[in-house]
Amino acid sequence: MPGILLETLRGKQGDKVPMWLMRQAGRYLPEYRELRAQKGGFLELAYDSEAASEVTLQPVRRFGFDGAILFSDILVIPHAMGQDLWFEAGEGPRLAPPLVDGAWQGLESVKERLDPVYETVRLTRAALGEETTMLGFAGSPWTVATYMVAGQGSKDQADTRALAYRDPAAFGSLIEAIESATVDYLIGQIDAGVEAVQLFDSWAGSLAPDQFERWVIAPNARIVAKLKEARPDVPVIGFPKGSGAKLPAYARETGVDAVGVDETVDPQWAARELPADMPVQGNLDPLLLLAGGEALGIRVETILRAFSDRPHVFNLGHGIGQHTPIAHVEALVAQVRGWRG
Amino acid sequence: MPGILLETLRGKQGDKVPMWLMRQAGRYLPEYRELRAQKGGFLELAYDSEAASEVTLQPVRRFGFDGAILFSDILVIPHAMGQDLWFEAGEGPRLAPPLVDGAWQGLESVKERLDPVYETVRLTRAALGEETTMLGFAGSPWTVATYMVAGQGSKDQADTRALAYRDPAAFGSLIEAIESATVDYLIGQIDAGVEAVQLFDSWAGSLAPDQFERWVIAPNARIVAKLKEARPDVPVIGFPKGSGAKLPAYARETGVDAVGVDETVDPQWAARELPADMPVQGNLDPLLLLAGGEALGIRVETILRAFSDRPHVFNLGHGIGQHTPIAHVEALVAQVRGWRG
Repeated sequence: MPGILLETLRGKQGDKVPMWLMRQAGRYLPEYRELRAQKGGFLELAYDSEAASEVTLQPVRRFGFDGAILFSDILVIPHAMGQDLWFEAGEGPRLAPPLVDGAWQGLESVKERLDPVYETVRLTRAALGEETTMLGFAGSPWTVATYMVAGQGSKDQADTRALAYRDPAAFGSLIEAIESATVDYLIGQIDAGVEAVQLFDSWAGSLAPDQFERWVIAPNARIVAKLKEARPDVPVIGFPKGSGAKLPAYARETGVDAVGVDETVDPQWAARELPADMPVQGNLDPLLLLAGGEALGIRVETILRAFSDRPHVFNLGHGIGQHTPIAHVEALVAQVRGWRG
Repeated sequence: MPGILLETLRGKQGDKVPMWLMRQAGRYLPEYRELRAQKGGFLELAYDSEAASEVTLQPVRRFGFDGAILFSDILVIPHAMGQDLWFEAGEGPRLAPPLVDGAWQGLESVKERLDPVYETVRLTRAALGEETTMLGFAGSPWTVATYMVAGQGSKDQADTRALAYRDPAAFGSLIEAIESATVDYLIGQIDAGVEAVQLFDSWAGSLAPDQFERWVIAPNARIVAKLKEARPDVPVIGFPKGSGAKLPAYARETGVDAVGVDETVDPQWAARELPADMPVQGNLDPLLLLAGGEALGIRVETILRAFSDRPHVFNLGHGIGQHTPIAHVEALVAQVRGWRG
């Protein structure tokens, strides 16, 4: 008997709205902070399968979420492709060397780096009740490429956007290499036990429309096609953050089963413009969850109502912030659980 | 005889598409770099009316643009409201103190800081031919507030968004103070000689839809209403950068005469969704102008065609980058000048 999250992602609308939160295994939880302090850094935690599995389970135990999302990072793919990866305290990820001028041709794949991730999935799936859906994920090629090219997060992804204009053929070969690694990686996650996967295109929003077609829609469509061929029963959630008015084209053209909607999108507009009956996921502003209060309850109601005519997975519009009070999450869970559309 | 830019902003579609470029007076021009080096810093240049006027005229002289946009900065308003303002080399603006917890109540207005700006307008308008439209501008309250609260540019404007959720009444009083200063400032620019004004809401894109209504649409609508009452003949261009699918609501509800369209928006979508006959401005990706080549020409043609059924001001989707080759700008000008829709 599959859980209500998986059923909803398969397009079935039940009485209850399933929920999980992006970055739900994270620093807002005291039990997470404790385990992370023991392990040292973020990456040490992510590559320690037992610890990563424990961290994946923590928010499900505490809040009873309908989905457990693998604790990992989108940058394990560049790491497995052969780039060095580390996290600078308080600053974020670093990848070396930055991949200018075709430097990715020299990378040597280190696929063993993904084995601990698969082991995390196995351990977690074995510990979960069948009512909870195990979610896997990967970064989409465009977003992963922006880190690989810049060697770190970057304002407006300008270096990568400029490279894509300057030498689209060379940049396309990088995108294809990421695509291929991503398909293998997601199949590995599925075979280890994940029941649905999400493709995070966190920086889709910085692209001009023709570039969005070429570097967001096309690569995601190719990944979905390959996944559907290999593992046809596993729903794929696409999350092209910041895509604004281009979201309906993404939903129609990539073949994803469901779309994640970020918090800047009017849910009534999304409900009107997205393909009828396509499951949607979203889209509460994490900063409103941080603030809490009456406005939070009103907004949650607005979102639930807007998506009440189609399968809906309640979620944030992006990851939960580390200073979010636990009590606000509890209030949110109670409200979504109590909702009758 | 008004120039074709002003005519287009008034809703008249002629044979020619007028053009100017955001940040056209800037570091991609050797004559700008030379004058700026003489003056020291950015702010020294902006507050030196003769130098600022010279810099405003430089791109018009070189490329024959249809608009001369005042060389200044959106942060002269917080400066005139009493915050300290300076620019850290290589980092960007700083405002002190950051305005948390109602600290803006203690600011003391220093309106003389705006006099050099008005003098820049007078000098520039006197030096321009009548075929060139003199453009003024200001930041919109939301965008200006994000700098005032954070004390600098900020990732995702998270501090200010959180403040707006936490204490909307207090934040609203800051927005209203900026609004009031902005109306006075734009009337001052108009009385000194500007013929149209642009409201830059550079960080409109980070807001959830209810917050966008409250902090972008409403304050801009109030500013436009006051300007229309005081100086009814002066067109107002609204530029809510990153607003995505919320752009048509902005266009309908603020009362602006024309809308600026950023480079992430599909121009065909904008042409379909924006109010019929409303003049549009945009929307070439500055990074494509940097890259140049065949793809640039194809994209410019796509934009010109998409907007060929309504008044259109050719422009970038945001400011021109400092490394843009002059030859690429020349090629762009030649193509737009040669266009017959």
